[in-house]
Amino acid sequence: MKNHRYCVIMAGGIGTRFWPMSRQSCPKQFLDILDTGRSFIRHTFDRFAKIIPIENFIVVTNKRYKSLVLEHIPELKEEQVLCEPIGRNTAPCIAYAAYTLKRRDPKAEMIVTPSDHLILNEEEFIRVVESSLEFVEYRNALMTIGIQPTRPETGYGYIQKSNAEEICKVKCFTEKPNREMAEVFLESGEFLWNSGIFIWKVGDIISAIEKHLPEHASLFSSIEGDLGTENEAKSIERVFSACRTISIDYGVMERADNVYVHNGNFGWSDVGTWGSVYQHGKKDRYANALSSDRINVYDTRNSLITVPKEKIAVVSGLKDYIVVDTADVLLICPMSDEQSIKSFIEDVKFSSGDKHI
Amino acid sequence: MKNHRYCVIMAGGIGTRFWPMSRQSCPKQFLDILDTGRSFIRHTFDRFAKIIPIENFIVVTNKRYKSLVLEHIPELKEEQVLCEPIGRNTAPCIAYAAYTLKRRDPKAEMIVTPSDHLILNEEEFIRVVESSLEFVEYRNALMTIGIQPTRPETGYGYIQKSNAEEICKVKCFTEKPNREMAEVFLESGEFLWNSGIFIWKVGDIISAIEKHLPEHASLFSSIEGDLGTENEAKSIERVFSACRTISIDYGVMERADNVYVHNGNFGWSDVGTWGSVYQHGKKDRYANALSSDRINVYDTRNSLITVPKEKIAVVSGLKDYIVVDTADVLLICPMSDEQSIKSFIEDVKFSSGDKHI
Repeated sequence: MKNHRYCVIMAGGIGTRFWPMSRQSCPKQFLDILDTGRSFIRHTFDRFAKIIPIENFIVVTNKRYKSLVLEHIPELKEEQVLCEPIGRNTAPCIAYAAYTLKRRDPKAEMIVTPSDHLILNEEEFIRVVESSLEFVEYRNALMTIGIQPTRPETGYGYIQKSNAEEICKVKCFTEKPNREMAEVFLESGEFLWNSGIFIWKVGDIISAIEKHLPEHASLFSSIEGDLGTENEAKSIERVFSACRTISIDYGVMERADNVYVHNGNFGWSDVGTWGSVYQHGKKDRYANALSSDRINVYDTRNSLITVPKEKIAVVSGLKDYIVVDTADVLLICPMSDEQSIKSFIEDVKFSSGDKHI
Repeated sequence: MKNHRYCVIMAGGIGTRFWPMSRQSCPKQFLDILDTGRSFIRHTFDRFAKIIPIENFIVVTNKRYKSLVLEHIPELKEEQVLCEPIGRNTAPCIAYAAYTLKRRDPKAEMIVTPSDHLILNEEEFIRVVESSLEFVEYRNALMTIGIQPTRPETGYGYIQKSNAEEICKVKCFTEKPNREMAEVFLESGEFLWNSGIFIWKVGDIISAIEKHLPEHASLFSSIEGDLGTENEAKSIERVFSACRTISIDYGVMERADNVYVHNGNFGWSDVGTWGSVYQHGKKDRYANALSSDRINVYDTRNSLITVPKEKIAVVSGLKDYIVVDTADVLLICPMSDEQSIKSFIEDVKFSSGDKHI
């Protein structure tokens, strides 16, 4: 019997927040920042490989990361890696995967997932995903997985539920709130974190794109015949140049009226900041997260220190700091500065004249 | 006319205080910590080469640094580099050079100098050295160069003058004082810093060694005939194993009654600590001494930051810190911790099991 379930892994991000460990040449999804023995993308693949056959995976990435993807997931065939010529946010990425899948299997059910998140309870996660797959199978429903919040986080978008059921209609999506608002959200019990994981049938998402992003739909449908042929790369190049940058949340999910959310509770983090790496990392007795036992600390507390494996480090007198040392960049900054890392990179690009830091 | 003036450069030190930049494999004298374009030993050679013929230089070093010496001063012939099998402090080092010179030129006048000091006013320095050479030429005098102190430094030994003449007899040598004592020394105007630079005739220092360090004298005189022959290395090996570790200050200068000091004032520092490197380095407008313009600092003051030439660094929120990054070691510590560096190294040796850090 044909398996109609597919997993689309979005892996095109450049991820500057983990600079200098993540770089344009090797972004976060290919790193093992938490020192688990596997990269984020490999974890993502392994997690879904429990329920999705290998041939039903698709990875969408920037063309420059194609070989990295195949290196981290050698099980994939080359044609399972779709290459974006330029990043246009998630809507074009998902459209590319959806139109590709539609040709191959019009009955496809798609899971769409970021490639760089942390999930602690995989068993519960799989249960939620399978229950969502069952839910959308016979309904025209766009499912998003929401996460039961545990703190007034200001770094995530939120989804307001319409009732207390495990799966329910979405009332509305909200942007990242300020601290005060985040506390209200948490107390109300009506809001979930937006995980960026989606589940739907390929026909349903294409209908939604046609309705809410007609320009994108017409661009992709105009080249449908080229997908899977030798013309694909050229046509995709043209479509991506022409199409607007827009997220699937803003372009489709916030506008559609058939959007559901599955209330998940399986230990999730987008590991989006050094602070969250610190939070999830192993700590010594002074609450330091150290990347190796070649790091000697004195009078140092609550700090994240990461150096190359063979390197020796001696660190004295730091409290609440981030120290990340790589072969060609050293970063030392207070944990509270981590939002400034983007501007640090801009300064470095400017002063070094190198755009590919 | 034969030139009887010789320069003996002592270059055997291992220098752990500049760890991790100085290492057993490349100690301070071979580094250009102040980023001047030349190593300390090269500066030392160039300084004296203005008044001493190249063939009248002798460098005494540990045998493992012989090739480094010849690399930094390619003008030298191999036989001008005397190799110590093990470090025994300055008295055996100077005895080795003195007995070697005596064979070659019994009328030799010797300048003995460390290889890793900073001298800012070279012209005045040379004037002082030449005037000392003239002073000792027709006197049995052991001359040491003292430095007019400019602050109550606790890191140096002091020399008490017997009067206010530029050259005068030494009243006494003192060990490194505590802060209170150093302030008294400074106010009295009677004390000079001990620079470790000496000037004397070879016959006079050998007489002094015979008198005050008879054991050492008898060891070295017993192998005089082997110096300059194929037996030299083997005999020196035996002598160094047998002879006591002792400094020339403690062993000879403090005991002899023909010791003079030349009051020098030419901008001198032994650059013995990261603090003194900081002091002598170029600063940015926030008083940071940065090793390259690839270091971007934010909210950082009074700090010394040194990274490999091609490396980018971003440093935020440090005040009065030392950051030294090398290929295989990273050190971050408060400037006030610099006396702890020796113990940091011991810990690293212990935890890494590597004795040659």
